Amino acid sequence: MSEHGGAGQQHGRNAGGSASVSGIGEFGLIGKITARLSYGPSTLLGPGDDAAVVAAPDGRVAASTDVLVDGRHFRRDWSSARDVGHRAAAANLADIAAMGATPTALLVALCMPADLDTAWAEGLADGLAAEAATVGASVVGGDMSASPTLTVAVTALGDLEGRPPVLRSGARPGDVLALAGRTGYAAAGLTVLTRGFRTPRLLVEAYRRPQVPYQAGPQAARLGATSMIDVSDGLLADLGHVSAASGVAIDVRRNAFEVPRQMADAAQALGVDPYTWILAGGDDHALAATFPPAVALPPDWRPIGVVTDGVGVTVDGAPHEGPAGWDHFG
Amino acid sequence: MSEHGGAGQQHGRNAGGSASVSGIGEFGLIGKITARLSYGPSTLLGPGDDAAVVAAPDGRVAASTDVLVDGRHFRRDWSSARDVGHRAAAANLADIAAMGATPTALLVALCMPADLDTAWAEGLADGLAAEAATVGASVVGGDMSASPTLTVAVTALGDLEGRPPVLRSGARPGDVLALAGRTGYAAAGLTVLTRGFRTPRLLVEAYRRPQVPYQAGPQAARLGATSMIDVSDGLLADLGHVSAASGVAIDVRRNAFEVPRQMADAAQALGVDPYTWILAGGDDHALAATFPPAVALPPDWRPIGVVTDGVGVTVDGAPHEGPAGWDHFG
Repeated sequence: MSEHGGAGQQHGRNAGGSASVSGIGEFGLIGKITARLSYGPSTLLGPGDDAAVVAAPDGRVAASTDVLVDGRHFRRDWSSARDVGHRAAAANLADIAAMGATPTALLVALCMPADLDTAWAEGLADGLAAEAATVGASVVGGDMSASPTLTVAVTALGDLEGRPPVLRSGARPGDVLALAGRTGYAAAGLTVLTRGFRTPRLLVEAYRRPQVPYQAGPQAARLGATSMIDVSDGLLADLGHVSAASGVAIDVRRNAFEVPRQMADAAQALGVDPYTWILAGGDDHALAATFPPAVALPPDWRPIGVVTDGVGVTVDGAPHEGPAGWDHFG
Repeated sequence: MSEHGGAGQQHGRNAGGSASVSGIGEFGLIGKITARLSYGPSTLLGPGDDAAVVAAPDGRVAASTDVLVDGRHFRRDWSSARDVGHRAAAANLADIAAMGATPTALLVALCMPADLDTAWAEGLADGLAAEAATVGASVVGGDMSASPTLTVAVTALGDLEGRPPVLRSGARPGDVLALAGRTGYAAAGLTVLTRGFRTPRLLVEAYRRPQVPYQAGPQAARLGATSMIDVSDGLLADLGHVSAASGVAIDVRRNAFEVPRQMADAAQALGVDPYTWILAGGDDHALAATFPPAVALPPDWRPIGVVTDGVGVTVDGAPHEGPAGWDHFG
């Protein structure tokens, strides 16, 4: 795509002695990044042509896009480039898992200030690729541009393996609500960082690199889950989407959640109710799903509530006091 | 995805009396936009869940990502929101066509200043959807976020219809180089706008909404094209990629290109060599392909040069004087 500015390419280096993205040029940086990537069996054609080609064995592809903006979804003094890569990949891979699909590929649009160190872009690529590799997926393509605002937009593709996608709209009264993964850890880590602390490490690391139970998505689909969602905006907010789409009420049991010691300590030190993190905090990318009551849940899935007739989401039968989640233009 | 800022959602309106994206909120804007979309037969599941599901009938999907940044790839005083939607879609759909594939779906990550009028976002969506509809593709998903820099990242998916992808690397000495679509029009239009003019309309409109010969991509694949590329950075620069990937030399005949009257007039008025636009200007998204000499080319494809032993790209047998294309960090 052409630029409005001039086409003069400078082979400069920035103050640190390392190359800036404007110094190395677009094709130089693409070369440095693609040299760091490796490709799983779903990558039929990787980067370097007009498009990648990815396997879609059952004749369908699940596809989802998420964008992270510097200063809004991450801060470079809180997260390394590699951390941001892990988080950006996780946000997208979790969306694929929440359909019951296995992720196959990522495509990445990266917008960078011209003076950004190329090492940052390389670290980001490493993080994206490493997170994708945990599920056998690969970074297969992308685009980059100069921009005043560092921005990472990722698209993930996935394989439904012959199953119907698990939608938000299938929950039925009588279903069991279950959770795979954890909630509140990343939000607690973010609060800790926001207040100027760097510990407890458990929480800060949870914010930096979510631990997503990807395999639990396809597992839930095989078990006959009636609905599923990636918990990215906060458990109650995201269950609100399931409730609305399915036309059911959902009640969450507060005592289904243990408050880990580090979270309890941090909550006390910061004067926060830890259940605000657990019930309304985003970014851990747990998976929430509903199952018919006859399904024997494996250890990855723990029951946290029930689906009933009605509308809305309650906690122990009552409306939740406090925020349910986040609005992206707030 | 959660935000570092507060979660307070204001239901405000901006000075013009219309809603701003921060006033309407993320979910409100998503609702307004998805209400404007319609879906082709490849859309098995559209927006509203964690991921979309798109048909991939032959068990593979072609996928490509391109990003447009305000002030760099477009200007809001030069292009309407709908124009930007058309251009963003065209850049991606052309990449899919250049593999010999038929586009099926777009996913869009949209980053917007909080005070942007929602009408801009809706116009963008209309342009994206309208351009996609010209090839039977649909906008099936996306994400949006506030950002200081208006940014549109688009991923396109496509169907190879059982054929191998047409790569950049397959050109062979003796092949005929042919072009579908036009070059130089968008670059001329951009130059016209840069100099403060709004006419000739032919050129300015070509910049605002590229006329891409999408169907010529699958057509070339069916005809046995040995290589193909989307001309987005400039004809000579993009042929340079084919030359390098294929290990061949490519010679372009200058007299294969007519200079249309409006372009000749604009070139004379602005003191520009029109062949700089034609040979080095991007953004028309013509398709360039190489064919074995025995192939009878249909009218969409006109011969513009030859492939020979050697390296590099020449014009009438000599190196081209002047720019070949654009670097995205220049």
